[in-house]
Amino acid sequence: MVKKPPYIYRAQVRFSHTDPAGYVFFPRFFEMFQSAVEDWFYHGLEINYAEMFQKGRALPTASTQSQFFKPCKLGDTLEISVVLETVGTSSLSVRFVGRVGGEVHLEASSVLVVINTQDGRPVPIDDDLRGRLNWYVQE
Amino acid sequence: MVKKPPYIYRAQVRFSHTDPAGYVFFPRFFEMFQSAVEDWFYHGLEINYAEMFQKGRALPTASTQSQFFKPCKLGDTLEISVVLETVGTSSLSVRFVGRVGGEVHLEASSVLVVINTQDGRPVPIDDDLRGRLNWYVQE
Amino acid sequence: MVKKPPYIYRAQVRFSHTDPAGYVFFPRFFEMFQSAVEDWFYHGLEINYAEMFQKGRALPTASTQSQFFKPCKLGDTLEISVVLETVGTSSLSVRFVGRVGGEVHLEASSVLVVINTQDGRPVPIDDDLRGRLNWYVQE
Amino acid sequence: MVKKPPYIYRAQVRFSHTDPAGYVFFPRFFEMFQSAVEDWFYHGLEINYAEMFQKGRALPTASTQSQFFKPCKLGDTLEISVVLETVGTSSLSVRFVGRVGGEVHLEASSVLVVINTQDGRPVPIDDDLRGRLNWYVQE
Repeated sequence: MVKKPPYIYRAQVRFSHTDPAGYVFFPRFFEMFQSAVEDWFYHGLEINYAEMFQKGRALPTASTQSQFFKPCKLGDTLEISVVLETVGTSSLSVRFVGRVGGEVHLEASSVLVVINTQDGRPVPIDDDLRGRLNWYVQE
Repeated sequence: MVKKPPYIYRAQVRFSHTDPAGYVFFPRFFEMFQSAVEDWFYHGLEINYAEMFQKGRALPTASTQSQFFKPCKLGDTLEISVVLETVGTSSLSVRFVGRVGGEVHLEASSVLVVINTQDGRPVPIDDDLRGRLNWYVQE
Repeated sequence: MVKKPPYIYRAQVRFSHTDPAGYVFFPRFFEMFQSAVEDWFYHGLEINYAEMFQKGRALPTASTQSQFFKPCKLGDTLEISVVLETVGTSSLSVRFVGRVGGEVHLEASSVLVVINTQDGRPVPIDDDLRGRLNWYVQE
Repeated sequence: MVKKPPYIYRAQVRFSHTDPAGYVFFPRFFEMFQSAVEDWFYHGLEINYAEMFQKGRALPTASTQSQFFKPCKLGDTLEISVVLETVGTSSLSVRFVGRVGGEVHLEASSVLVVINTQDGRPVPIDDDLRGRLNWYVQE
C-alpha cells in the first residue's frame, strides 16, 4: 500500500515559548509535539481529536526519549515531522523531528497510549483508528 | 567522602498542571524538574541560581529519557528526588524520580549542559561548582 | 467578629516564569493567583480544594482588572496577598496584591464564580463555604 | 485616511490550553493575546516582531481589564480581533475581542508599553511605528 508521507506541523516560535536566555524553554517543545499530534489527527488521520476526547479517548505520553541538538529562538519557524514508527495493541511509537530551515534541531521518540478517560486505563486501538494509522506507519 | 542524600523537591499538583482528563499534563513535569534543579542549587549546592544566571551561566537540558508510569492528579504531593549520576567536562547527568505517597510515578534521566548565555556554547564546569557537585555525585 | 488577616502566598520567581526580556511573562502571574487561591482554600479556609473539585465545584475567573507596576525577575520572592472584598450569591471579589521586598509590584481585582463542573453554570455559595469566607471578608 | 480593519488572529483550542473542567484555563487567553499581537506585527503592521525584539524593543502588558463571558473548549476555533483604540507617547491601548462561531466569548482591554529591554524603561514610539499604527487606530 502507498503510505502517506509524515505529517508536518509548523510552529512559529513565540515570546511565550522562550526563556530568559532567549531560546525555547524545552518543556514548550513537548507542548508543540502535543499540538502536532492533534493536527495530525485532524488533518492527516481525518479524525476529530476533540470529538474523540469527548467520547472518552485520550492519548497521554507514556515515555519519551528526546534530544535537543540546537536551540530555537524567537521568530524561528519550527517544522515538526510526525513519523509513525510502530502501532501496538494500545500504543503508538512516534518520532518527532524538529527542523529550522531544513536543519534538524531536535528529535524525540515517544510512546503514546490510547486510554479510556473514565478510568485512565489503556484500551485496544479499534479497527477504524488502526486502518487510518496504517496510512502512515513505516515498515 | 560522605555524600549528601539526593535533594528532594516537593511539588503540589495544581489546577494549572492538570489537563482535561484530570491528570498532570506531561510537559508540566519538565517544568517541575527545572524547578527541582533550581531549588537543588539554592538549598543543596548552596549556589544562588538566579545570580549564576545573571553572571551568564545557564543549564539547558540537552536530552532526556522519561517514563510516566502512573498519572498524578490534582492535590497530589509529588516528591521529586534529584539524583546526580555523573559529572562530565561541561555536563551533568541527573535522574529525577517522582513519587506520590512513596510510590514511583515517573522517572527521567536528563543531561544538563552548562552554557555561556552570551553565545549558547558549553563551558567547562569550574572548580567551585565541581566541588559542590561532588557532595552529591553517585560513585 | 474578629477577621483573619489576608492569606499570603509566596511564589519564587523561576526560570519557567520569565521571558526573554528577563522578567516574569505576565500570564504567569495569573497562574500564581490561581495557586494563591488554592493554598488559601487549603490553609486559610481549611477546605480541601482538590476534593471540592472532585465533588464538582470549580472557581473560574469571570473577570479581572490587573495592573503590573514593576517587573519581577528570576530569583525574586513574590508575596501575594489574597484580600477577600465581597461575597455575592455565587461569586467572590478578590484583590491580589503582589509585593517584592515589601514593595507593591502588581495588583489585580478578580471575580471568581462558583460553578458546577457538570454544566459549567454558577451555583449558590453554600452555608459552609459562606461561613468560612466570612472569616476573611472585609467590611 | 482609510483605516485597515482590525487584525484577526485565529487560535485553535488545544489540549494544552484546557483545564480539568474541560475549558480553556484563563491565563492561556493572555498567552493567545500575546501571540495575536505578534502576528498583528508580522502580518498587519508589517514589522518583524522578532527582529524588533533583537534590537532591544519589547511590548509588555502594563494593565488589562478582561471579561470571560462564556467558556471555550477543546476543538473550538477562537477568533481574536485586535482593535487598536489609542496610541500614546510610549503606549498602546488595545482591545481584544474573542469570538467562537461569531459569538463573543471574551473581551479584554490592555495597555502595552514600548520599552527598552536593556533597562526595562518606556521609550517613545518612533515615527515609523507610529505611522503604521495609524493604519489601524480607531478615531
